[in-house]
Amino acid sequence: MNAPLRVGVAGATGAVGSEMLAVLEERSFPVESVRALASRGGDGRRVRFAGREIDVEKLSPGALRDLDVVLFGTSARVSREFVPVARDLGAVAIDNSRAFRMDPGVPLVVPEVNPDAASRHDGIIANPNCSTIQMVLVLKPLLDAAGVRRVVTATYQSVSGTGLAAIRELRDQSEAVLRGEPVVEEVYPHQIAFNCLPQIDVFDDAGETREETKMVAETRKILDLPDLGVTAMCVRVPVFRGHAVALNVETEREITPEDARTVLAGSPGVGVVDCPECSEYPTQVDSGTGDTVWVGRVRRDPSVPNGLWLWVVADNLRKGAALNAVQIAELLVDGLPG
Amino acid sequence: MNAPLRVGVAGATGAVGSEMLAVLEERSFPVESVRALASRGGDGRRVRFAGREIDVEKLSPGALRDLDVVLFGTSARVSREFVPVARDLGAVAIDNSRAFRMDPGVPLVVPEVNPDAASRHDGIIANPNCSTIQMVLVLKPLLDAAGVRRVVTATYQSVSGTGLAAIRELRDQSEAVLRGEPVVEEVYPHQIAFNCLPQIDVFDDAGETREETKMVAETRKILDLPDLGVTAMCVRVPVFRGHAVALNVETEREITPEDARTVLAGSPGVGVVDCPECSEYPTQVDSGTGDTVWVGRVRRDPSVPNGLWLWVVADNLRKGAALNAVQIAELLVDGLPG
Repeated sequence: MNAPLRVGVAGATGAVGSEMLAVLEERSFPVESVRALASRGGDGRRVRFAGREIDVEKLSPGALRDLDVVLFGTSARVSREFVPVARDLGAVAIDNSRAFRMDPGVPLVVPEVNPDAASRHDGIIANPNCSTIQMVLVLKPLLDAAGVRRVVTATYQSVSGTGLAAIRELRDQSEAVLRGEPVVEEVYPHQIAFNCLPQIDVFDDAGETREETKMVAETRKILDLPDLGVTAMCVRVPVFRGHAVALNVETEREITPEDARTVLAGSPGVGVVDCPECSEYPTQVDSGTGDTVWVGRVRRDPSVPNGLWLWVVADNLRKGAALNAVQIAELLVDGLPG
Repeated sequence: MNAPLRVGVAGATGAVGSEMLAVLEERSFPVESVRALASRGGDGRRVRFAGREIDVEKLSPGALRDLDVVLFGTSARVSREFVPVARDLGAVAIDNSRAFRMDPGVPLVVPEVNPDAASRHDGIIANPNCSTIQMVLVLKPLLDAAGVRRVVTATYQSVSGTGLAAIRELRDQSEAVLRGEPVVEEVYPHQIAFNCLPQIDVFDDAGETREETKMVAETRKILDLPDLGVTAMCVRVPVFRGHAVALNVETEREITPEDARTVLAGSPGVGVVDCPECSEYPTQVDSGTGDTVWVGRVRRDPSVPNGLWLWVVADNLRKGAALNAVQIAELLVDGLPG
């Protein structure tokens, strides 16, 4: 596509949509115009973009006309309704929900990992799940360097992945607990303040959550390894922003922790913070906002021949969602550096 | 030993020691007398036991005379100094610190798992690490039912494992964050409020923390399987009490999740809370206080032939420390049911 582009952001008042607007501005994405859309738009609400206020329009077929790219930071239900409309009206829809990710005709793209897949779109490109993005960004360089036989992961995911209401719930419940008052549970089925919940999204018949299923299926699709052994336990932790992932990787060939660090430090989008002797490693508070996926605690797992442990922290709203979506849009613009 | 016994509790004012006193009382341990000891005792401080106040004496060789059993809820440094003194003065020392755990002459005991080891003591019995206890309580029934080939675990450990100062730090930092004020870091090297720290205890040269090393070495010693493949990533989470462990187990022979649940539900000290369709599973707030080790999220890991995931929650101060120590003491008393 020829820049500048007419860009729409759907879900513009939500946790992900507002980050999409911020990322478009920060990265000087070549916009001719920006339209902010939301299911409950059209009520006089405005959002800021590039130093001015823009009206939030109600998300409707009419509001999706005359756009080149629409970034969807909406729920799967809303995306299922409006993503095909945007596509049929001539835009390329980049969707952050799960609605189209596993559709064989829809590329699932992490620009540093499988940028070429983006060009095979038919008007819809899917943005992967947040935890999956930060995991594959680390797995890909290890795969290229040493092959990957099996991945076992346990996650430490912040409430911002659920949305703004969950951020409020963690804040309100934390205040209540500290005051010795009872907590109100609305967003999560159990208290999240000062607690860990081994449930993200709904359960399937085998007792696996949808988040766990996503991490397996999406990783295989992005890496184009349909039989890769991957398994996950996904846990919500009382953290506002940033996801952490404990990653146990069995590689095909030996790779030392030193070599793994070197390979990762040289990979686009990845940074290494790993100094055990000075207690330095990424944490959600220190490294959970921004554009880089941070890796630390790289060490041998001696329980298998080629075992490796890593601790991976990223901003679930940026690289895990909004930034990755804008990076996909950048792949579509002619003449932009890839 | 013939009941009633003269019992000492060292570290009686700490997080673990005060639980030891509470557990002795709750379980009606047959005491002739109870002596409360602490490094900074003798300053007029008192603790409650069985409805009365008892003076906290300064921990010294003199204060360890004429005791049958001394429960040590002290640091490794203090235990290293006073556990041998208690033993030499004729008592059996049951030590909760890491000081003697890997000593080949010291039994490391979880009463439901390896009670017979307790009888082979030479005046010192070690209480395992908190996370190890809750893990082996779940591994042992699986081992007996299906064999265990490899264990990969990631932990979600509360601040009470560090002690009372850490509980205060989580509270103070959480209040500061909620008020938008800067946090003070004293106990932990980084902010623990609304954050996860992939460091528990110090690092070795291979980049593994002492907590991770303990979970491997102690599990092998308790299960008497010196070559068992076990590996851990240990993480501190902003939770006041209760540890959770995500446990990925590869068994030797197939065992279905249903059979695993049945085996676990029938095991002493273990309870199963596992109803995905009603969002029921153990959490630290709901199941992190009390005597039972709770298991949920039992499901297949299809990435290996006999893979199983489990989520294990226990009270790190009770079964993870004080309760297990008192249960060891009960093994020493003639005529008590085992």
